[in-house]
Amino acid sequence: MTILDKINSPKDVKNLSTDEMNILSQDIRDAILKRVNDFGGHLGPDLGIVEATIALHYVFNSPQDKIVYDVSHQVYPHKMLTGRKEGFLNPEMYTKISGYSNPSESEHDHFIIGHTSTSVSLATGLAKARDLKNEKYNVIALIGDGSLSGGEAYEGFNNAAELNSNMIIIVNDNEMSIAPNAGGLYRNLDELRKTNGQAQNNVFKAIGFEYLYVEDGNNIESLISAFEKIKDINHPVVVHIHTLKGKGYEPAEIDKETYHWHTPGFIGQKTAQSEEKTYNSITKDFLLNKKNNNEPVIAITAATPGVFDFNPEFRNKMGKNYTDVGIAEEHAIAYASGLAKNGAKPVLALMSSFVQRTYDQMSQDLALNNSPATVLIYWGGISNADMTHLCTFDIPLISNIPNIVYLAPVNKEEYLAMLEWSYNQNEHPVFIRVPAGNLVSTGAADTTDYSKLNKYKVEYEGSNVAIVAAGNFFCLGQQVKEELKQKAGIDATLINPRFLTGIDEELLDDLKKNHKVVITLEDGEIDGGFGEKIARFYGNSEMKVLNYGSKKEFSDRVPLDELYDRYRLKKELIVEDIKECL
Amino acid sequence: MTILDKINSPKDVKNLSTDEMNILSQDIRDAILKRVNDFGGHLGPDLGIVEATIALHYVFNSPQDKIVYDVSHQVYPHKMLTGRKEGFLNPEMYTKISGYSNPSESEHDHFIIGHTSTSVSLATGLAKARDLKNEKYNVIALIGDGSLSGGEAYEGFNNAAELNSNMIIIVNDNEMSIAPNAGGLYRNLDELRKTNGQAQNNVFKAIGFEYLYVEDGNNIESLISAFEKIKDINHPVVVHIHTLKGKGYEPAEIDKETYHWHTPGFIGQKTAQSEEKTYNSITKDFLLNKKNNNEPVIAITAATPGVFDFNPEFRNKMGKNYTDVGIAEEHAIAYASGLAKNGAKPVLALMSSFVQRTYDQMSQDLALNNSPATVLIYWGGISNADMTHLCTFDIPLISNIPNIVYLAPVNKEEYLAMLEWSYNQNEHPVFIRVPAGNLVSTGAADTTDYSKLNKYKVEYEGSNVAIVAAGNFFCLGQQVKEELKQKAGIDATLINPRFLTGIDEELLDDLKKNHKVVITLEDGEIDGGFGEKIARFYGNSEMKVLNYGSKKEFSDRVPLDELYDRYRLKKELIVEDIKECL
Repeated sequence: MTILDKINSPKDVKNLSTDEMNILSQDIRDAILKRVNDFGGHLGPDLGIVEATIALHYVFNSPQDKIVYDVSHQVYPHKMLTGRKEGFLNPEMYTKISGYSNPSESEHDHFIIGHTSTSVSLATGLAKARDLKNEKYNVIALIGDGSLSGGEAYEGFNNAAELNSNMIIIVNDNEMSIAPNAGGLYRNLDELRKTNGQAQNNVFKAIGFEYLYVEDGNNIESLISAFEKIKDINHPVVVHIHTLKGKGYEPAEIDKETYHWHTPGFIGQKTAQSEEKTYNSITKDFLLNKKNNNEPVIAITAATPGVFDFNPEFRNKMGKNYTDVGIAEEHAIAYASGLAKNGAKPVLALMSSFVQRTYDQMSQDLALNNSPATVLIYWGGISNADMTHLCTFDIPLISNIPNIVYLAPVNKEEYLAMLEWSYNQNEHPVFIRVPAGNLVSTGAADTTDYSKLNKYKVEYEGSNVAIVAAGNFFCLGQQVKEELKQKAGIDATLINPRFLTGIDEELLDDLKKNHKVVITLEDGEIDGGFGEKIARFYGNSEMKVLNYGSKKEFSDRVPLDELYDRYRLKKELIVEDIKECL
Repeated sequence: MTILDKINSPKDVKNLSTDEMNILSQDIRDAILKRVNDFGGHLGPDLGIVEATIALHYVFNSPQDKIVYDVSHQVYPHKMLTGRKEGFLNPEMYTKISGYSNPSESEHDHFIIGHTSTSVSLATGLAKARDLKNEKYNVIALIGDGSLSGGEAYEGFNNAAELNSNMIIIVNDNEMSIAPNAGGLYRNLDELRKTNGQAQNNVFKAIGFEYLYVEDGNNIESLISAFEKIKDINHPVVVHIHTLKGKGYEPAEIDKETYHWHTPGFIGQKTAQSEEKTYNSITKDFLLNKKNNNEPVIAITAATPGVFDFNPEFRNKMGKNYTDVGIAEEHAIAYASGLAKNGAKPVLALMSSFVQRTYDQMSQDLALNNSPATVLIYWGGISNADMTHLCTFDIPLISNIPNIVYLAPVNKEEYLAMLEWSYNQNEHPVFIRVPAGNLVSTGAADTTDYSKLNKYKVEYEGSNVAIVAAGNFFCLGQQVKEELKQKAGIDATLINPRFLTGIDEELLDDLKKNHKVVITLEDGEIDGGFGEKIARFYGNSEMKVLNYGSKKEFSDRVPLDELYDRYRLKKELIVEDIKECL
């Protein structure tokens, strides 16, 4: 029987000796490794925070004392100590316990959290409510150094400093974001580490916090001693703990970026470099080619280079033509706007779920200024993701902002033609929704002039029913077309709209002549999306319109097939609907 | 002839003596006062920055050296020195020269800017593009202390610190945001002012900037001396200048908040306190009443209390039940979520144009967590505003986020009933679009149970045509109904939908029985908005649908009547459309 076997709630931690807690650390590490190797998930940050989590539960009394975990990348040990260890030890339970903080799993979690830089702001709200109700307990926000670069974190720190009451912020400094950190703040963290917290420059003290440094953030005794000092404190304090990302699993200690998050099956495996071309690889080729031509291209990421396979090799080759701004999507957009306005050629890559961290900058800094930057949106589409990482909202978000051109290519040739056009033009902010899945090639170069906005492409001219199939769902459109032919003898028109931000009025008007039904397919939320614009266009006509996409909802790890059923995104179901309409 | 009369470009400033520059300061102040008193605009920040602007143009060479003005609240003196003084001296030119930075007016402006906290990020882009192209000149961001609380500013500072080249940030510290500042950062600025810039805690130095302090930021000689020191510097520097907001106009020096921005005609006038009830006053009454009942209510603003008339008297009465988080809308939403989750009753007030600064927090921190906070959206609707301050995007922005309930009351009784319901319930994040214009009262209490979501209210049951008229446009709906009766003999149905976030399927289905056309009216952008959901709903039916609202565009100071013509938002035009449809 391991020590972990005996832990069913934080109370059980309080009875352990230091030696037992050290053994427990190893039990927890084994369990983290097992789950991530079996099931995938966050590895490095969880391995680094094991001792601190044990010490937190030893010193504080959760759930009365409330601990908020930023971004949840380091929440596994907490889950194991709060009644959810089976989600790590028992493969059948992997899907029952999510990788993120979630109050529906446990009273020890206070929010559903999956985006970064939110913990201090949320905890400040908890603390202020406590004060208004004259209650007494500790409110603790645990935030990684990587998350500190996000504006919301800073806004939270600035306001937390004003609380005249208990507020404990633990800065878990493992010297890494997902990728290496960049920015002035990180030079200060470095200085603080090097001086055992004694450096004169101290950003936390500067904005009004008491400050405590713990050099060995993986030493349970040091941590307990620090936490005991500030337990029940009556003013805001920052405890800066220095931890080792990936601790206890050597490959993760060495290659921190690769093992921040990992897919299953890495133990004992060597990762083979694939030679196959992908949308990621052709994007990198495009960027390197521009750079090698000495053009003022600049590739930008906001701390998630792995999403686009912007690996160290690529980054080295790009050199000064690459910027990782850290978790700072707002800055990334404004920075791209400034670059574009001054004659450089920014290409900013963002994951769909994170582009929503920067609406006002897309609108004001970029679109209002018509800055000709290129923004690539990755992973947009319906998926079985955690509810915190859905990628279904980017079309409603982006496509209703004036001046922006949002393109949805359906194959390699279109994608590269759009990218080349966007890169060279000087009139519009252009977003491109990078196709999901494997590279699809037609073999025929795309010679479209994309400066003629909102011109849809008729892939096949039929009659009666027109299928407007955007981006990732172009394939589904083809399937529906086939099914209509086979099951209903209808020779449908197939249209690739390519533009998500406007409608081809001429073409749509033309369809009225010999079509009765138009269906729209988009891989994202219908509400506020692409298809509704077409429904509106036909509102005063006889044309029937059916819009397909995802419902307005936060789906949580629902299998894709189930979602496709729910949203009727299958050829048989769509053909059923069409037949009913005719 | 004044000195200002002789200034046609920054070059002319360079030939002036210090004495002449001091006289020029007075000329500029006179012109600012004249325009703002005649036409309205930003007063205090512009009066405070006069000397610094003269010194900037004396030392640097605009437009080769590029100066970016944050939020544009302090851009008037710059406009006067860069060929646009007629916009201040000649009343006929007031409408030609906007109150905001705009490259289409002058090569000395580099961006259209009207939202805060953007300058450092934009300037970092300019500087990096300069470096990529191996060019040499100064890039300068001028940012007020108030704007420093916004996350985008911090993200910009963090990344600007990483530039190994020229980057000059001038922090214009007038000890005020629009209202008094709050937050840890401001305690540091205070410490720096009190120590003549020598305090050991220095947030700018901490994150890697060289730092220079100018105590008398209204003394031209001191400013010139400081700027000459850092001109052509090869690394990032912060010049912290201490200025007097409102300088030279005593009422504005004393009451900095009232005179930050002002409507015309204040000189020699006493502002009479109106006794008339308004949507602002009944909101304040509601909040004070809760506070006086010792409930854990908390009113929150993000640095724009004036928009809601949260005046000092109200703030004092609310005491600890009031938080101004500063320009930090992201934090405001997360903070409200934390408060609501811990049993307090947050009511956050935001102006429509600024709610867009916080999409991800609305989605992740608030909606995903179903935190029962109340958010009041003010000024939502089509207006003749500057393109930077349009309030037409909040419906598409908010209403496509799952879990949020967005309500549009049309009179006092509905508004108060919705507010009371939202305040007391614990299931949903609720947004309320506070009606525009004067208080409208029906005299009859609203006893609706708003927990039954998406139930529209049939105000009048007719046939043939149904008018779904939301919020501010309920009146327009009534007019259309009358016009239809008079001009076409149609007895139309009139519906007040009240919910912007969902559709009343039962009611809409029912309309199919004896209606041929449904029109939707919303005071905001059609694209992605409320009406399109109804167009989609009827897509598979015979019902014709006409959606009305504003086009997807950044309109710029266009008279409202002209916009209503452009968008066909007039009863005659709408009735024309309906007749064509029937």
